[in-house]
Amino acid sequence: MGRIEPHILKGFRDYLPEVMVPRVKLLRAIASVFERFGFEPLDTPSLEYAEILLGKLGPEAEKLFYRFKDAGERDIALRYEFTISLARVMAQYRDLPRPFRRYQMGPVWRAESPARGRFREFWQCDVDIVGTHSLLADAECIAVDHAVMQAVGAPEYRIRFNNRKLFAGLQERLGIAEGSTMAAAVRSIDKQDKIGREGVRAELEDLVAQGKLTTAQVNGILNTIVVTPEIAFGGDPVVHLRERLADSPTAQLALDEIEEVRLNAFRLGVPESGVLYFDPSIARGLDYYTGTVFETTLDDLPRFGSVMSGGRYDGLIGLFAGEDIPAVGISVGVDRLIAALEELQRLPAARASAQALVTVFDNAGADYAVRVATMLRDGGVNTELWLEPGAKLQKQMKYADRKGIPCVVVTGPDEQAAGEAALKVMATGAQQRVKLDALADAIRAATPQASAP
Amino acid sequence: MGRIEPHILKGFRDYLPEVMVPRVKLLRAIASVFERFGFEPLDTPSLEYAEILLGKLGPEAEKLFYRFKDAGERDIALRYEFTISLARVMAQYRDLPRPFRRYQMGPVWRAESPARGRFREFWQCDVDIVGTHSLLADAECIAVDHAVMQAVGAPEYRIRFNNRKLFAGLQERLGIAEGSTMAAAVRSIDKQDKIGREGVRAELEDLVAQGKLTTAQVNGILNTIVVTPEIAFGGDPVVHLRERLADSPTAQLALDEIEEVRLNAFRLGVPESGVLYFDPSIARGLDYYTGTVFETTLDDLPRFGSVMSGGRYDGLIGLFAGEDIPAVGISVGVDRLIAALEELQRLPAARASAQALVTVFDNAGADYAVRVATMLRDGGVNTELWLEPGAKLQKQMKYADRKGIPCVVVTGPDEQAAGEAALKVMATGAQQRVKLDALADAIRAATPQASAP
Repeated sequence: MGRIEPHILKGFRDYLPEVMVPRVKLLRAIASVFERFGFEPLDTPSLEYAEILLGKLGPEAEKLFYRFKDAGERDIALRYEFTISLARVMAQYRDLPRPFRRYQMGPVWRAESPARGRFREFWQCDVDIVGTHSLLADAECIAVDHAVMQAVGAPEYRIRFNNRKLFAGLQERLGIAEGSTMAAAVRSIDKQDKIGREGVRAELEDLVAQGKLTTAQVNGILNTIVVTPEIAFGGDPVVHLRERLADSPTAQLALDEIEEVRLNAFRLGVPESGVLYFDPSIARGLDYYTGTVFETTLDDLPRFGSVMSGGRYDGLIGLFAGEDIPAVGISVGVDRLIAALEELQRLPAARASAQALVTVFDNAGADYAVRVATMLRDGGVNTELWLEPGAKLQKQMKYADRKGIPCVVVTGPDEQAAGEAALKVMATGAQQRVKLDALADAIRAATPQASAP
Repeated sequence: MGRIEPHILKGFRDYLPEVMVPRVKLLRAIASVFERFGFEPLDTPSLEYAEILLGKLGPEAEKLFYRFKDAGERDIALRYEFTISLARVMAQYRDLPRPFRRYQMGPVWRAESPARGRFREFWQCDVDIVGTHSLLADAECIAVDHAVMQAVGAPEYRIRFNNRKLFAGLQERLGIAEGSTMAAAVRSIDKQDKIGREGVRAELEDLVAQGKLTTAQVNGILNTIVVTPEIAFGGDPVVHLRERLADSPTAQLALDEIEEVRLNAFRLGVPESGVLYFDPSIARGLDYYTGTVFETTLDDLPRFGSVMSGGRYDGLIGLFAGEDIPAVGISVGVDRLIAALEELQRLPAARASAQALVTVFDNAGADYAVRVATMLRDGGVNTELWLEPGAKLQKQMKYADRKGIPCVVVTGPDEQAAGEAALKVMATGAQQRVKLDALADAIRAATPQASAP
């Protein structure tokens, strides 16, 4: 066989240890929050029948699937996201206790054009509550959102939420035609964050030019729903909208739900100011949301867009079951979140899981070094043992430095004779002699951030 | 769209929560051991170029790949195992510090005929030490094996190890032809566990019938290497083999290595009796091992075969790098291990991550219940909140029971008035009133096994 050039597919990544270490920590922290809120882990196959995975998606989305025939000529595909498999699970295991709360974390695959920050294999972390209309469930999802942001150490962020029924109320109030016109208007409204109030106005006026909206309707939308910091309603926008949409029962229902979700989110631990904002321009792109919608942005990185989002989607989960099954969920864009935290220098500092490298001073001292490493491991310290007696100490130090191992343990003849070890903290260069039975604690004290959360 | 029948592909599995909960715990416990021994996480793509993944594998193995053309007509495949990707990584990132110690955990895919306990998507958990000939590395791998078995709570097990050079020594000593004859003999010897000494003899006599071995050679093999409990050598088999193979320098080298690895494994925490056995019949099927080999079996489940195995393979990792790179590693057959622990009733007992269900007594009491749930979560208790005020308490109890949630918290008007909650432990039926600030500890005390390791 000739030499094969080592290379990977475009849009795919290797996660080398220094990248993987903080990533593993964050994924564990996120799973831990999910479990704290009573969500149970579920895993489904990476490969499924294409007819299942494609669900109700149109031909545009179909192109993004890795789809092929297996050896048995079955039409199969790699999963594109988790929700459709959850819908299948709900139909296939009819006796799952409801509400069914589950989380799922793992890779999904999309044959997108690779771009900066966009990959063809990436992780999703989803939680969903299936089988209840209770708005407490919507509030739980928002509380999970906040708790995840806290757990990963995100700095200032805001969760903006809305209710899709509000758009139905607006349509009712302004007499906008149902169907594609309203959908186009909502898509424009949802872009306010990116294109601003004037950008939204321009897009809506295009719809006027097409004869789909009237100028009065455009003004109605802009004055009712599209908020900018400059023209904030003053006070609680719910009060403003109650008045503006007084003659729409659907809008009043939406506002009732918004108030109830907000109140319960506060009771479930979301701070009453500075985190959760009602924003009537939030729509979320996906067509399937039917009630509460929310998204999460980092104040210092608006261009990253939403790092976590979700909402209520009462129409999808029943797809295979042939019944209506309400559901509300949240999806963490974990790769985007990690990229954002890295940019904000908020990623966990440790580049290595190992907290200490136990060096080997010379051949004669190898046994002592092995004993010290074993003792540290028994004491719960993540410990790498140098494996090649005879290497210069300087080489071993350099190795620890390159790997980002925070502590180095040296056991020369003096230390051995005294039943001690020399502990060097790489970040400061400080070195001290420590009795063996105090070594594990000394290493822990020097590397508080290195152990898994 | 017509109704789609919910079903999954043959050979694939859904892991429902009650199966996933102990699985997640075991995977975390295993990762934790890997990190304790100084191994760092690595992740590589699920999809790679087929020419990379197929490496040196022959046409038989090729059939087992999920291999297809992507939209760009690239010849790609799902990974079949991790080692070949590790070889690619070592060639692609030349400046990785060596020895490079990494672990990788995740799914791999094989288009095998599905059978009981054999799936087309399953998890592998590998650790490898790349770039050193040091036999301390071999001993580290055996120590990791032992520590993993301890961490997952495996009952009696044994790690049997050998050195492939011993077979070369035997060949030298008995004058057996190199190549296919010796390979066939080694395959038979390795089967001793399944077919017994007499089975091995029968297979070797077939080789005599084919004119490939002499009867003297067969007797030489049986008397030297094939051990059964009935005809144990008495004392340390190393001593026996030193004498038997006195005139083979290769065998003496193998025995030196065996003694050194064993001694260091003991120093690294493997008990000096009852766990690690030198067994000269162990060969491991794969052709690529070059030195130390070992495998792990559960005493009470011999028919499960090896649940964890590994060894030194100095020829493979340099495949893409174009240089010799020594390596030693270990692979946990995590699905087989979990199946075995389940059969031995040693799986973690918890079926749910949630430690408590906070029930909602009535509409008026919903706020209090929400507050109690939030307090428990803040106190680190994995807590599910009942979401539908108005449901009968009995229904909520039944729900907790079906999900396997160990504690139920009831907050009726009396409890609310007293600032307390009633705690019911499902396993015993015991119920007690607890002050709110003591509730988290009371739940922890009642469910010690439910928190993640």
